[in-house]
Amino acid sequence: MGRVTVRRPVLTLSAQGQRHHQDALAGEEPLELRVEGRALAVTMRTPGHDVELAHGFLLSEGVIGARADVRAARFCDSPRTDGVSTYNVLDVELAVGVAAPAAGVARNFYTTSSCGVCGKASLDAVRLRTRFSPAADPITVTPTTLATLPDALRAAQPTFEATGGLHAAGLFTAAGELLVAREDIGRHNAVDKVLGWALLAERIPATGCVLLVSGRASFELAQKAVMAGIPILAAVSAPSALAVDLAIEAGLTLIGFLRGPTMNIYAGPHRVQR
Amino acid sequence: MGRVTVRRPVLTLSAQGQRHHQDALAGEEPLELRVEGRALAVTMRTPGHDVELAHGFLLSEGVIGARADVRAARFCDSPRTDGVSTYNVLDVELAVGVAAPAAGVARNFYTTSSCGVCGKASLDAVRLRTRFSPAADPITVTPTTLATLPDALRAAQPTFEATGGLHAAGLFTAAGELLVAREDIGRHNAVDKVLGWALLAERIPATGCVLLVSGRASFELAQKAVMAGIPILAAVSAPSALAVDLAIEAGLTLIGFLRGPTMNIYAGPHRVQR
Repeated sequence: MGRVTVRRPVLTLSAQGQRHHQDALAGEEPLELRVEGRALAVTMRTPGHDVELAHGFLLSEGVIGARADVRAARFCDSPRTDGVSTYNVLDVELAVGVAAPAAGVARNFYTTSSCGVCGKASLDAVRLRTRFSPAADPITVTPTTLATLPDALRAAQPTFEATGGLHAAGLFTAAGELLVAREDIGRHNAVDKVLGWALLAERIPATGCVLLVSGRASFELAQKAVMAGIPILAAVSAPSALAVDLAIEAGLTLIGFLRGPTMNIYAGPHRVQR
Repeated sequence: MGRVTVRRPVLTLSAQGQRHHQDALAGEEPLELRVEGRALAVTMRTPGHDVELAHGFLLSEGVIGARADVRAARFCDSPRTDGVSTYNVLDVELAVGVAAPAAGVARNFYTTSSCGVCGKASLDAVRLRTRFSPAADPITVTPTTLATLPDALRAAQPTFEATGGLHAAGLFTAAGELLVAREDIGRHNAVDKVLGWALLAERIPATGCVLLVSGRASFELAQKAVMAGIPILAAVSAPSALAVDLAIEAGLTLIGFLRGPTMNIYAGPHRVQR
């Protein structure tokens, strides 16, 4: 127990009657991300792997592209009323020559195109910002390997097992080896933690890798895969239409409804051996 | 077919072989919300019920509390390159005397407290901002009624049936009557659309009502329930610890893992007849 899982009393009603007991729940706290001392974003996240989260967020937003782009990431002094640090404010100092993001970068990501606010503009924004392209990645993967990934990710989710309340993301090799798994109350945060891990491990662009997410594949998750140079994104549930459009345009293989040997390939089928 | 569901070609692999067909996917497009002509937020949402979404968002943020607080909400001229409007920019004109939000209101919601960035500060921010309190609402509901709600919500989800890709939120009376159901690629948006509907129907504060969400109950969803004066929040999946803390502090009944006759009551058990 700690800040990742938290115990709370609960009353369970069922056909067997009622029962008071203690339940393990997912922790959730705000994280304020600062760049060069200036607040950039606040996200509600499950505490832990916060430095990875910050790196992954900045990679997703196009601010950084390599480990060397960050000089230091440190928790700021942010005491509670009892004087103990909250560890909820993280400041990132960029390397010399790396431009700090303009104010409101996260919010304006979708509106930087000149063609108005629309799905097309969102696609354009990703194309303009990404420094990597998964399009030329020659990696392929077998359906047999893909079929094993959801169980492998689930096995690496200790907090979900305890709480039933967390999203997960995992990065795999094309042979099905799990490189890293991360959990979070927010699906975007789980992916950002994985991408931050990869960046700190100097594995960005993450060529030859498969990113698996435990839920749906929205535009923003596909965007994160593209920004990290990941060639294959697989989701246990449905993608959105805009995620499919982005995958097609960016050369990302997008797989949805990955449930054992059954799966839907929405983009880039050439990377799935058949 | 339209902007809510979109067809895309898909290749399905299964034990029965492979099949090319057309799949219906959830639509996802950016919506830029403006207040008095100034951009406040961009959210990726499933198009439709956008005026409700705007009202619910502003209610959740504490900017408005009644239908009369908004003078007009209209789509701005936001043409695509072919000249057709995107219907993705919505401007809200507030009534005289209603203060426009400060810049970055959404992002700063969690940091307005003087006690630092932490869960406690997030709770404080809701208490300071909400103009309604569910604490004194005398409504009660039976477990038998609660057990019927997930199926009732699912039956009101035509797009989920088609795409498997949408979150849903529904507002019910304590007798189990469905007042409104909304779907969206984003869970927050689905709730905002429901709250906006209620505000436009002059049902805010939504006393005597149950809000059901199809997934997890995070802090932000509990916050939205409190801001709308809803006394009971039920989720099909797990709550976060901070959502439970907020529910206890605000006098909100919070039910998780609502699956037929089995459910977990995390806060406010006095509203569930036993």
